[in-house]
Amino acid sequence: MNTFTLILEILGTFAFAVSGIRLASQKRFDLFGAYVVGVATAIGGGTIRDLLLNIPVFWMSDPIYLILSGVALAYGCIPTRYTIKQSNAILVFDTLGLALFTIVGLEKTVSLGFSWWTAIVMGTITGAAGGVIRDVLVGQVPLIFRKEIYAMACVIGGIVYFICLHIGFNSIISGLVGGVFVILVRYLAVRYRLSLPLLPK
Amino acid sequence: MNTFTLILEILGTFAFAVSGIRLASQKRFDLFGAYVVGVATAIGGGTIRDLLLNIPVFWMSDPIYLILSGVALAYGCIPTRYTIKQSNAILVFDTLGLALFTIVGLEKTVSLGFSWWTAIVMGTITGAAGGVIRDVLVGQVPLIFRKEIYAMACVIGGIVYFICLHIGFNSIISGLVGGVFVILVRYLAVRYRLSLPLLPK
Amino acid sequence: MNTFTLILEILGTFAFAVSGIRLASQKRFDLFGAYVVGVATAIGGGTIRDLLLNIPVFWMSDPIYLILSGVALAYGCIPTRYTIKQSNAILVFDTLGLALFTIVGLEKTVSLGFSWWTAIVMGTITGAAGGVIRDVLVGQVPLIFRKEIYAMACVIGGIVYFICLHIGFNSIISGLVGGVFVILVRYLAVRYRLSLPLLPK
Repeated sequence: MNTFTLILEILGTFAFAVSGIRLASQKRFDLFGAYVVGVATAIGGGTIRDLLLNIPVFWMSDPIYLILSGVALAYGCIPTRYTIKQSNAILVFDTLGLALFTIVGLEKTVSLGFSWWTAIVMGTITGAAGGVIRDVLVGQVPLIFRKEIYAMACVIGGIVYFICLHIGFNSIISGLVGGVFVILVRYLAVRYRLSLPLLPK
Repeated sequence: MNTFTLILEILGTFAFAVSGIRLASQKRFDLFGAYVVGVATAIGGGTIRDLLLNIPVFWMSDPIYLILSGVALAYGCIPTRYTIKQSNAILVFDTLGLALFTIVGLEKTVSLGFSWWTAIVMGTITGAAGGVIRDVLVGQVPLIFRKEIYAMACVIGGIVYFICLHIGFNSIISGLVGGVFVILVRYLAVRYRLSLPLLPK
Repeated sequence: MNTFTLILEILGTFAFAVSGIRLASQKRFDLFGAYVVGVATAIGGGTIRDLLLNIPVFWMSDPIYLILSGVALAYGCIPTRYTIKQSNAILVFDTLGLALFTIVGLEKTVSLGFSWWTAIVMGTITGAAGGVIRDVLVGQVPLIFRKEIYAMACVIGGIVYFICLHIGFNSIISGLVGGVFVILVRYLAVRYRLSLPLLPK
C-alpha cells in the first residue's frame, strides 16, 4: 500500500474510533466497552472489505490501528466542554471517516485489479459498514438508513474518483477530489435535509 | 458452476431482493436504503457461504446480482395495487428465495467435495442467513426465530436432496425435488401455523 | 491442533451452546431456533477468528461441534428444577465458555506465528464474539457492554498467559493459569459488581 492510502487510513481510523467512542459514551458504556465500539467502528468496514477481497486483514499485521483507537479513547476522556459539542463531534468525525475510508477502499480494490463497479462497492463498504456495525452494537437504527443521504455519498464519491482517473488525473488527486465529494454530498444532505424519495408502502 | 445452479441463483437473487425491498419500504426506508437492504438480503447468505468455503465471493466477479437487485427495486417502485399485496409479497418472495438458495448452497458445497452434513449446513446458511441479515438491518426479530417452521425447511429440503441423489436421481432432479420440499414445508407451516415445541423456560 | 486445545474447545462448545439455548428458551424460541442460537453462540467466535486468520473454519471438517450443540439441546430439554437455576446456568456456562475459548484462541493464534497482541485480540474475539452474536440474535444489548467487566477478563487472561509463557511455563500450564484468571476476574466482577469507569457524556 502506498503512503497516501496509509495516511488516509490512519486519519480515518482515528475519526471513526472517536465517532464510535463518543456514541458509546452517550449510551453510558464503560471505558472498555467504548474502546471496543471505537475499534469495531474503525476497523469493521476494512475488515469486511479484506475478507471479501481475500487479502490479509489490514489491522492484524500492525498494532497502529488498535493504538490509534486508544488515542481516540484518551481524546474521548476529555470533558466535552473542552472539545467540540458531542452531537456535532459524532457527525463531523463520522463524515471524515466516511470520506477517508471510501477512498482507501477504492484505491485498495483498484490496485488488486478489480473492476470499477467492484471498487465502488468496496469503497462504500469500507466507508459505511463500520458505522452500521457501531449502530447495531449500541442498539440504534443504522445511521445509513436514517433520513439524510449517507451511503449514496460514497457511491457518488466513487463515481467522481473514476471520472477523475478517466480524465487523466493521478490516483492521489482523484482520491482527494472523490473524498471532497463524499464530504460535500454528506454536508449538503445534512444541511438541507436532503433525502431520497421513499418507495410506495 | 453449471447453468442450472446459475438460473436458480438469479431467480433467488431477484426473489430475496424483492423481499428485502418490500420490507424496507414498509419501514419507510428511502430508495437507496431499500436497495441496500435488498442487496444485503439477496447476497448475504451466499457471501457467508463463500467466505466459509474460502472460495471467491460469487457476486464480486459479475455485476448481474447488483443489476438484478436494481430490477427488483424498479419492481418495488410499482404501486402495490398493481402487484400482489405487500405482506403476501414478502412471504411469497421470501419462500421462493429460501428454496432456490438452499439448493444453490447444497450444489456448490457438494461440488467442492465437502460432506453431506456440511452441504446441508451451507444450504441452510445460503437460504436463511440473508433473511436474518435483512431482519437485523431493519430492526425486527429475525423471521427465522418467529413462530412457524423456517430454517428447518432448508434442513428437510437438504435431507430430501441427498436421499434423491442416493436413490440415483441426477443433481438437477434432486435439486428440484429438494426445493419443492422446502416450499412445501414452509407453506404448510404458515398455512397450518405449524411450529416446533418450546423448551422449558 | 493438540489434544489439550481440542479438549478445551469441546468443553467450551458445550458450555456456550448451553448458554445460548438457555437464553433462547427464556425468550420463547422453539426447539430449532434454540439450537440455531446455541450453535451460533458456540461456533461464532471461533468462526470469526478462523476467517480473520484465513485458516479453514474449525467446525466444517468435523461434525462434533454440531453434535455437541445437539447434546446441549437435549440438556436444555430437562426441566430446570432438575438442573441448576436458569439465570445462574447462563452465567456459569457463559463464564466457562469465555475462559475456555479465550485460551483456544490464544493457542491457535500463537501456533500460527502471529504476535502476542494479535493473539490476545484473537483470544478475546474467540471468547467474547459468540456471546455478542447470541445477544444480537435474541435482541438484547450484548452482555459484553453491560455493567460488569466482561471482555476485559479475556484481555487480562491473555496477558497472564503470555507472562506465564515468558517465565518459562509450557503452553498447557500457561493456558490453565490464563483460563483461571479469566474465570476469577469475571467471578469477582459479578460478585462485587466491579465495572470500569464511564466516559464523560
